[in-house]
Amino acid sequence: MTSPSTGPSRWERLHESIQAKTPIFDLLRARFRHPVRGSERDFVVLSPPDWVNVVALTPEHHLVLVRQFRYGINDFSLEIPGGVMEAGENPITAGLRELREETGYQGTSARLLGSVHPNPAIQSNRCHFVFAEGTVPTHALEWDQDEEIQIMTSPVDAVLALARSGGITHGLVLDALLLFEPHWQRIKAGAS
Amino acid sequence: MTSPSTGPSRWERLHESIQAKTPIFDLLRARFRHPVRGSERDFVVLSPPDWVNVVALTPEHHLVLVRQFRYGINDFSLEIPGGVMEAGENPITAGLRELREETGYQGTSARLLGSVHPNPAIQSNRCHFVFAEGTVPTHALEWDQDEEIQIMTSPVDAVLALARSGGITHGLVLDALLLFEPHWQRIKAGAS
Repeated sequence: MTSPSTGPSRWERLHESIQAKTPIFDLLRARFRHPVRGSERDFVVLSPPDWVNVVALTPEHHLVLVRQFRYGINDFSLEIPGGVMEAGENPITAGLRELREETGYQGTSARLLGSVHPNPAIQSNRCHFVFAEGTVPTHALEWDQDEEIQIMTSPVDAVLALARSGGITHGLVLDALLLFEPHWQRIKAGAS
Repeated sequence: MTSPSTGPSRWERLHESIQAKTPIFDLLRARFRHPVRGSERDFVVLSPPDWVNVVALTPEHHLVLVRQFRYGINDFSLEIPGGVMEAGENPITAGLRELREETGYQGTSARLLGSVHPNPAIQSNRCHFVFAEGTVPTHALEWDQDEEIQIMTSPVDAVLALARSGGITHGLVLDALLLFEPHWQRIKAGAS
């Protein structure tokens, strides 16, 4: 890489306080000190548990999709299954659990596609993406209170086309689908 | 699409209150009513302004990158330029402004690559992705207080390889880069 400028400093995190608690994250005020200037400043940090989303491929090479009303945008959103990881859970276990609870689908094998920080500037957690193969509906649904989920399947290429054309707008779901794309090209090449 | 289940209901948003204010978003408690059951429930909604990120291509077919210390993850993060849109600003104007202020680069043309919801479940805003071509360093830097940004350029294919291998972990930056990929394939095909 070509870089004409000098590197940024690593601020020292001194302490934090909880500004607000919610059922899904704590809103922290974290105090940082600049290592050179010595100046101190508070920054806002959201601290949710890690999240997981699952790219679930059926034997017919469809993907499992969920459509839900989302309170943040006050509208419906088409997504892949996912949710909040429990303490101590690994991403693959958590992903398969969320897939089963939300959709009743279970897979024959699963692996990690990748992990991101949803927003490094203001949020501490990570979101993991799991790819599950051979998924078929086997279980009863176990929805949380107030969950109403329309479960759908659609051919992979149709889902990827939706992702690239604005039909799927959830940024983390888009990450998972676009990270899955080269895996899908290999599967398709082997299957055809 | 194949869907064996019925659709979810559209909840009615009744009113909201501010649970906490921060410099970068309001934390709302929004009251919703289920249209069939009539039950009411509060949900947490983060309400930031819209954001924008810029895929800035140089005449040498490098991308402009920024490396910063990020308080949310308490670590450094390699990203593309971006920031908060101002009220009434359109995404392209905002993206070019952020590019100029953060890196001093200015482009010859720009267009929208796409827009996402960073988190439809709990967050109301959108993040827009702008593609700027012919970008070269022309302006003095205008960093906000406490901004320290390492400005770099790197060949597009190297950046995309980093994005797909975990070297770039910002989920929204990853969206922008992966949405840019087919555009880049066309540019590369035309340029070679």
